[in-house]
Amino acid sequence: MNTPTTTVHTGRHFLQIPGPTNVPDRVLRAIDMPTIDHRGPEFAGLGLAVIEGAKRVFRTASPVVIYPSSGTGAWEAAIVNTLSPGDRVLMAETGQFATLWRTMAGRLGLEVDFIEGDWRHGADPAAIGARLAEDRGHTIKAVMVVHNETSTGVTSRIPEIRRAIDQASHPALLLVDTISSLGSIDYRHDEWGVDVTVGGSQKGLMLPPGLGFNAVSDKALAAAAANTSRRSYWDWHEIIAANRTGYWPYTPATNLLYGLREAITMLEEEGLEAVFARHDRHAAATRAAVRAWGMEILCADPREYSSALTAVMMPDGHDADQFREAVLARFDMSLGTGLARLKGRVFRIGHLGHFNDLMLMGTLAGVEMGFEVAGVPYREGGVRAAMDVLSGKARP
Amino acid sequence: MNTPTTTVHTGRHFLQIPGPTNVPDRVLRAIDMPTIDHRGPEFAGLGLAVIEGAKRVFRTASPVVIYPSSGTGAWEAAIVNTLSPGDRVLMAETGQFATLWRTMAGRLGLEVDFIEGDWRHGADPAAIGARLAEDRGHTIKAVMVVHNETSTGVTSRIPEIRRAIDQASHPALLLVDTISSLGSIDYRHDEWGVDVTVGGSQKGLMLPPGLGFNAVSDKALAAAAANTSRRSYWDWHEIIAANRTGYWPYTPATNLLYGLREAITMLEEEGLEAVFARHDRHAAATRAAVRAWGMEILCADPREYSSALTAVMMPDGHDADQFREAVLARFDMSLGTGLARLKGRVFRIGHLGHFNDLMLMGTLAGVEMGFEVAGVPYREGGVRAAMDVLSGKARP
Amino acid sequence: MNTPTTTVHTGRHFLQIPGPTNVPDRVLRAIDMPTIDHRGPEFAGLGLAVIEGAKRVFRTASPVVIYPSSGTGAWEAAIVNTLSPGDRVLMAETGQFATLWRTMAGRLGLEVDFIEGDWRHGADPAAIGARLAEDRGHTIKAVMVVHNETSTGVTSRIPEIRRAIDQASHPALLLVDTISSLGSIDYRHDEWGVDVTVGGSQKGLMLPPGLGFNAVSDKALAAAAANTSRRSYWDWHEIIAANRTGYWPYTPATNLLYGLREAITMLEEEGLEAVFARHDRHAAATRAAVRAWGMEILCADPREYSSALTAVMMPDGHDADQFREAVLARFDMSLGTGLARLKGRVFRIGHLGHFNDLMLMGTLAGVEMGFEVAGVPYREGGVRAAMDVLSGKARP
Amino acid sequence: MNTPTTTVHTGRHFLQIPGPTNVPDRVLRAIDMPTIDHRGPEFAGLGLAVIEGAKRVFRTASPVVIYPSSGTGAWEAAIVNTLSPGDRVLMAETGQFATLWRTMAGRLGLEVDFIEGDWRHGADPAAIGARLAEDRGHTIKAVMVVHNETSTGVTSRIPEIRRAIDQASHPALLLVDTISSLGSIDYRHDEWGVDVTVGGSQKGLMLPPGLGFNAVSDKALAAAAANTSRRSYWDWHEIIAANRTGYWPYTPATNLLYGLREAITMLEEEGLEAVFARHDRHAAATRAAVRAWGMEILCADPREYSSALTAVMMPDGHDADQFREAVLARFDMSLGTGLARLKGRVFRIGHLGHFNDLMLMGTLAGVEMGFEVAGVPYREGGVRAAMDVLSGKARP
Repeated sequence: MNTPTTTVHTGRHFLQIPGPTNVPDRVLRAIDMPTIDHRGPEFAGLGLAVIEGAKRVFRTASPVVIYPSSGTGAWEAAIVNTLSPGDRVLMAETGQFATLWRTMAGRLGLEVDFIEGDWRHGADPAAIGARLAEDRGHTIKAVMVVHNETSTGVTSRIPEIRRAIDQASHPALLLVDTISSLGSIDYRHDEWGVDVTVGGSQKGLMLPPGLGFNAVSDKALAAAAANTSRRSYWDWHEIIAANRTGYWPYTPATNLLYGLREAITMLEEEGLEAVFARHDRHAAATRAAVRAWGMEILCADPREYSSALTAVMMPDGHDADQFREAVLARFDMSLGTGLARLKGRVFRIGHLGHFNDLMLMGTLAGVEMGFEVAGVPYREGGVRAAMDVLSGKARP
Repeated sequence: MNTPTTTVHTGRHFLQIPGPTNVPDRVLRAIDMPTIDHRGPEFAGLGLAVIEGAKRVFRTASPVVIYPSSGTGAWEAAIVNTLSPGDRVLMAETGQFATLWRTMAGRLGLEVDFIEGDWRHGADPAAIGARLAEDRGHTIKAVMVVHNETSTGVTSRIPEIRRAIDQASHPALLLVDTISSLGSIDYRHDEWGVDVTVGGSQKGLMLPPGLGFNAVSDKALAAAAANTSRRSYWDWHEIIAANRTGYWPYTPATNLLYGLREAITMLEEEGLEAVFARHDRHAAATRAAVRAWGMEILCADPREYSSALTAVMMPDGHDADQFREAVLARFDMSLGTGLARLKGRVFRIGHLGHFNDLMLMGTLAGVEMGFEVAGVPYREGGVRAAMDVLSGKARP
Repeated sequence: MNTPTTTVHTGRHFLQIPGPTNVPDRVLRAIDMPTIDHRGPEFAGLGLAVIEGAKRVFRTASPVVIYPSSGTGAWEAAIVNTLSPGDRVLMAETGQFATLWRTMAGRLGLEVDFIEGDWRHGADPAAIGARLAEDRGHTIKAVMVVHNETSTGVTSRIPEIRRAIDQASHPALLLVDTISSLGSIDYRHDEWGVDVTVGGSQKGLMLPPGLGFNAVSDKALAAAAANTSRRSYWDWHEIIAANRTGYWPYTPATNLLYGLREAITMLEEEGLEAVFARHDRHAAATRAAVRAWGMEILCADPREYSSALTAVMMPDGHDADQFREAVLARFDMSLGTGLARLKGRVFRIGHLGHFNDLMLMGTLAGVEMGFEVAGVPYREGGVRAAMDVLSGKARP
Repeated sequence: MNTPTTTVHTGRHFLQIPGPTNVPDRVLRAIDMPTIDHRGPEFAGLGLAVIEGAKRVFRTASPVVIYPSSGTGAWEAAIVNTLSPGDRVLMAETGQFATLWRTMAGRLGLEVDFIEGDWRHGADPAAIGARLAEDRGHTIKAVMVVHNETSTGVTSRIPEIRRAIDQASHPALLLVDTISSLGSIDYRHDEWGVDVTVGGSQKGLMLPPGLGFNAVSDKALAAAAANTSRRSYWDWHEIIAANRTGYWPYTPATNLLYGLREAITMLEEEGLEAVFARHDRHAAATRAAVRAWGMEILCADPREYSSALTAVMMPDGHDADQFREAVLARFDMSLGTGLARLKGRVFRIGHLGHFNDLMLMGTLAGVEMGFEVAGVPYREGGVRAAMDVLSGKARP
């Protein structure tokens, strides 16, 4: 009875990687409607709705540019609009995605000052401030930081980084990647003085992948206007001009925009504050489980715990990917792999997007049972500890 | 952090009533296709596929009649085809659905011998045998039993009932309601010598409600041919005749038939034996949880435990419906209510249909956390016990 | 180039039978959502919405009972609630559906006075009045008429029939089948003094098949209360009682009800008057085409032209079904067959439901080209004539 | 009756712009499934299926790179992989899309020799050959041509252009835009010796917009390997490497890939030759209609007629966009606008993608009736002429 022989999975797959996340039925059904003329009057209503809605989610009064692209494309867009080959930028090694963005910056000709990190901490505001203070000649054109590092479950403190830049009285632009935080973790483009916020559709926005976002400050727009860097597809100017009446200069990903309209509606029905509080609760419950299992959370600084995902360190001598494969085979749940230097050493639990208490409990039970079936040493009680948090029995 | 103030639910609802069950995406998407001409050549392929597929699920070589109706309609069809007003039938009071079927039988003019029950046991083969043995004149025309009593989580032992009828050498027809067992619990129309099996779409068949089924033995067909009872919509004859070429005498529920075709495909991809084993595992895990909580399972005879649902008795002084409402409000999970004489005294956990280990764990965690938030006295450890069953740590 | 060799059809099928009709994407997508607990609080909102909405479509303040059934089931429901075996009823032979309803009435034990017809006219108010006038003893318990005879494209004049009954001062109930008129052709349950209106989901309501309707007057309810006829599934009483709070006594076809809610919304967005005017225009254009082709419309009385479908008589020596098969094979369009005595002699063009001018033009072009490819003698100009009507160039 | 007062459209919109095209239900429903882990084993099956399938549609044994982007992005990808700022390229002014691609080339730093055109002819193989022959120093690095010019309905003769290049013994790469021809008009990447073929999802591939394609010859790959141009998102190397096992280096547009898999299945069920023949028939019928109306086809050379769309010249003194608006308002059909220098002077009828004879007839009837309601002078008979082509009565 305890040795299922079938390999056919039934019931719903648990997609608990830190993105793409579980897409709500309402969003999928919205996408599943006939494509309309992207030059016709009906489209303008859709276009304006998603552009204005996106601004509310990014918390900005400035333009938000929506690309048919992955989030990686939106990274590139942020760079080619504001920076030119040879420009110097300051980045912080928070994990694999910061490293990939740095690699891209290099390929696009930027000179990157990369503040090394241990992949267990966020970008250090003090270190950034120090580097900028040293840069008397203001050769650093931009500070580029990943808000929520998807590879580690560490959330950098953007307001403190902003203050560090300001305290150094440095004119560098601030570019922030919110691909895995937007719509899950509190984020304020305008209030925090960010110049370019990079987003993607497939995480907190609860959409399939295929849309990239740039929220763009006036300062960034001015930098772009002055920037002679060669670019075409990613160029903000034409898109923002066309967006004024709800259109795009080239064919947008119409059906994904249907989904975006519905996803924004859902986020606003719940309320962004409630969305963030929900993610905080689920993250707290997850960490309670991890501690009860006797395992270590990768994120070393409680101020930087991610509410979108939790990376868990495997006990020595146990391979995280073997564990993940066992969980997938036995319990039909996808967990996030350890990336690059973390390969085999951590697994990641995504608890963001269209999610709730019982989905989280199924997730954590799958992890705890996965330890059992994969022979990973653990203490019982993780699921119990999470229930105590969610039911209010325990303070997290 | 532990006091969510939002009333907007996110993530997937946990529909853990014992039917309607969670409809697979594949089935919903199959239904979501344009309706076709029910008299055209394409329809015949659909019709034959679902008629033949249904026969494999009912495990019969005899006709299966598919109605545009609820399961209640299929109850009526079984009666009006084989029995006439004034006919005497033998029924067993296994719970609310047996009682409702009896009420229907009365309304349709049958004289019902109702073997009383305590709603904690299945139909008693010995009692049935005894009644039939007494009936020397063979005035009892049919024995009517509910296989899986949805109101109690008790599964009657049909093969033993069949043997009891045979041992009494009684010619009564055997009519069995499998609405909440078909596709979840082992059932064999032909091998068990059942004359009419009544089914519905919205439980183990993983469809929305709207289809009713009658599997019909040769003996039942002969009884119907001789039966002068007035009937039209439910009459088997015309439907079976039209079904030979894949059609229906009146417009069938085309789109639900699309879903039925897909659902049968899914059941056969998994394999019926694997489907039943899965339900057995989940039921065992659920019972382990109930026992660990220190609660009582309504079903009193382990031979009759239902693999489709488990009815749990509430501690004295606690209302099951208040508990259910708390679970719905806080954890967005629907549990089954106690029906009729069980109102307020039990709640029912559905663990049938399109379901898996982690969905069950979310379900049981919702129950355990529900006890906490609703102030119902319980022992911790139910979720833990279920995990031990599902992970193979404990023998159930 | 003119001899396509592929048998794989592309593009959208033209479903131009007089029902099931083309289901709107919005309705299919509404159906394609997870089934909910039919006893939970969310369901009540759905239930009340469709019950109240259906009343607006039937134009009644009285209850509308919605069954999980085909329209045929709703026929049976109308009979078994109001009439008893042995009761005498008056019916009019308007075509195949009137004949089938009469057959059902006979099977259910009614004694039917069937006013013969030529299948080219509606029910004759004068003949009905005469029969009722003769019935001094008021032995006729009901007049049963098909509003729009789907087999012939003839719409009976219900208000005149009502007047005939009134003029005869006869107490008979008036039962009307609106399966293929409701939501397409003006119909007023209350204003016209109808006692039971029978409806189905798959025509003007733009849904897949699977729902049956009975709108029920106070007089019909009183008749039902006094009626001792055996019935259970179809019994109005329990359903109407449960409907008061938005529920059903047995599991309703939840997902089709989602679709019904959306379909009613769409009908009301367009406005019922606009819906009827649209159907009138399309019918006028279709008749203009038929006349231009030199063919004869089956309906012999212009007062009774159906706005939902047009039955066209084939030239002598040409088989309508061979023509239909050629159209299906070559142009992927389903046309309605000639039924019973009309077999091979007429084909039917459905122009009801979710439909518009260009869909009609594709339909009529398919007919006109079908004549060409099937070698049916015709005059060119049908499509042209319809365009003149639709573009306003010609008065229909 | 001829003056509909409602502005609510019913029935299906006719999306007859030359892309985005009507997306088949099967494709939309395939997209409407839960997003899966793009790093998991199930994804690899999807990835390999679409990569291999795309190669069959492009008719190449070389890699096809699939981007989360619009077709415009795929234009940029073709350029930045093979060419560097300062490189000289030869382009032909076939219409607005050739002009836009030229503008992009300029923005990306290329020096463009632009062979002027009248927007009524395709790229002239002789002119291209002559320019290349003059280029003794082989400073021209690439010839860039639009296969099917979506703005004009003119299809350039790629094989002849290939021959012209070969006859000039010129080493330039051949880059071809097939955004509006792929899957509609015969195209052979390998056989025709094309180096980079640019495609998009939203035309003949019958998908929503959001995917861009580059089919890449060995020669193009070699050029890319030697090309030091700065690029990251569009770089072929990493994608092709990851594609070998079915993955992507960044998150692909998973759900659109579901749709692509289904669309390729549909194209292959019909057979590419049959798909092309169907488009040829529909284009021939459309041209017959245009001629019968007494209007002029924009494409001046019958060898270059597009089978995907037909651009129609408006009579002098009549504005094409006013006509299009009237058609949209009255008949709910979207036609393509005249672009740039053709603004107001032509409208475009898309007859590509998921389409069939009766959809075309609805389309052409909408145009003919549109002339009537908009007061555009025309001769009757266009619809008739198209029917004669489609029914085989007339040779086109």
